[in-house]
Amino acid sequence: MIIEYDGTDFAGWQRQDGAVSTVQGEIEAVLRRILQEAVSITGAGRTDKGVHAMGQAASFMTGSSMEAGRLCHSLNSLLPSSIRIMSLIDVDGDFHARYSALSRQYRYMLRQRESAIFRRFSGYDRASHDLDQLNSRASVLLGRHDFKAFSKSGSDTRTTCCTVSEAQWFREKEFLVFQISANRFLRSMVRYLVSATLRFSGEEISYALVSRQPIKGLLPADPAGLFLWEIGYASAG
Amino acid sequence: MIIEYDGTDFAGWQRQDGAVSTVQGEIEAVLRRILQEAVSITGAGRTDKGVHAMGQAASFMTGSSMEAGRLCHSLNSLLPSSIRIMSLIDVDGDFHARYSALSRQYRYMLRQRESAIFRRFSGYDRASHDLDQLNSRASVLLGRHDFKAFSKSGSDTRTTCCTVSEAQWFREKEFLVFQISANRFLRSMVRYLVSATLRFSGEEISYALVSRQPIKGLLPADPAGLFLWEIGYASAG
Repeated sequence: MIIEYDGTDFAGWQRQDGAVSTVQGEIEAVLRRILQEAVSITGAGRTDKGVHAMGQAASFMTGSSMEAGRLCHSLNSLLPSSIRIMSLIDVDGDFHARYSALSRQYRYMLRQRESAIFRRFSGYDRASHDLDQLNSRASVLLGRHDFKAFSKSGSDTRTTCCTVSEAQWFREKEFLVFQISANRFLRSMVRYLVSATLRFSGEEISYALVSRQPIKGLLPADPAGLFLWEIGYASAG
Repeated sequence: MIIEYDGTDFAGWQRQDGAVSTVQGEIEAVLRRILQEAVSITGAGRTDKGVHAMGQAASFMTGSSMEAGRLCHSLNSLLPSSIRIMSLIDVDGDFHARYSALSRQYRYMLRQRESAIFRRFSGYDRASHDLDQLNSRASVLLGRHDFKAFSKSGSDTRTTCCTVSEAQWFREKEFLVFQISANRFLRSMVRYLVSATLRFSGEEISYALVSRQPIKGLLPADPAGLFLWEIGYASAG
C-alpha cells in the first residue's frame, strides 16, 4: 500500500508500546479490526516524530481473501483523516516493502516568511539563501559516503554508509525545497543535511563526512518541513 | 494589519463571550497585554468557524505610540502560531478596515482525491467536473443580485444584495479553485455558491437569485477549503 500521512500528531511511523499514537500502530489496529487477525506491516522507511509522508510504502501478509479495493476503502473509513491509504494492491509473496525498495526520496519544504497556513508543513528560515551556493554544498553529498556525522547518535545500524543519487535545492512558489534520494537513510539524516547545507560550507560538510565527526552546533531541521516523498522499486511490485 | 490564519481550531473570526476561541478574540487579548489598554479591532470580513484567511485586514485605535514594526513583532511572539500578523502599519484616523474596504476576494480549494496533507486546507469532491461548465454556471453570479437564497437564514443584514465582480473556477496543480470577488458577502455565501456551481445548473442558480428561494438540498461546502484571500482598498490606506 501507498500511504499519505500528516505526521504532526504522531510519534513517528514505528509502532510503540503503550498509549503513544504512531502511523504504523494506527494502521495495524484498523487492519486487525477489519481482517480479524493480527497483522504486522512493514514500512519502506521509518519517519521521525512529526515527519510527514506523501508516498510511504508498506506491505503485510494476510490469510484473508478480501479484495484489495474493498480493503483499501474499509481502511480509509476507519483510519483517522490524517492517514490516507492512496492505493493497495496484491503483490507476490516475495515482495517486501523495506527490502525490495531500491531508493527512498525525501523532500524538505522551507518557508522564508511567517505563515499560519504553512507552519504545519514547512520549516522556517528567514535568512536569504543563494540557490547556486546551496546546490554547490548539496553536491558534496552525492555518491557513497559514511553519514555517521549526520545521524542521531545511538542509532543502531550495521553500517552508516549510504549512496546518495540526488541532492538538490530548488524553488517552488514561495518555498525553498530540498530533494534528496538515496538507497537508505540514517535516523534524522535528512533533517541534519537540510540544516548543514543551509548553514555550513561545502568544505565543512565534506570534512564531517570524512571524519565522521558531527559539525559543532548543527541541529536537525524542524520535522514539520520533511516529507517521505516516494519509494522506488524495481517494478510495480 | 494584514492577518493570515489557520481557522481550523477557531470558532470563526468574531469575538464571542465565554471560553470560545476566535481569531479576533485572540488578537485583542494579546494587544491588550502589550498595549496595557482595552483594544477593539475591526475586521474587513467575518469568517465562519473553520474558514481560513491569507489576507484578512483589521484596524484599531490606540493611545499607544509604540512603533508599528515593534508592535507587529510583539504580536507574533505572543499569538498562537495559527495566527500571524503579516504586516502592521499606521493609518489615517478616518481609515476603517471594514467601511473603507471596496472589495473582498475569497478562494475555495477543492481536492479531487483523498489527502491526509491537504484535508485541513481543502474541501473534497471526487466527482469529475468540466471547467467550462463550472465557469458557465459561475458567470450567472456576476453583477448585482440578491443573494438571499445563498446565505445562512437568520443573518441579520440590512440588505441581501451584493455586487459580484469576479467568479471563476480554475485549476491549480491538483486542485480545482473557485475565486470570487464582491463588494460584500452574506454569511456562508461563498460556501453555498461553491456547492451550487458544482452541483446545480446555471438556470437553477439564476432562478434562486431571482426568486430568493434556497435551492432544495443545497448545503454549504466544507469550511476547510475556504480562504478570505484579499481585501481591496482604494489606496494603501
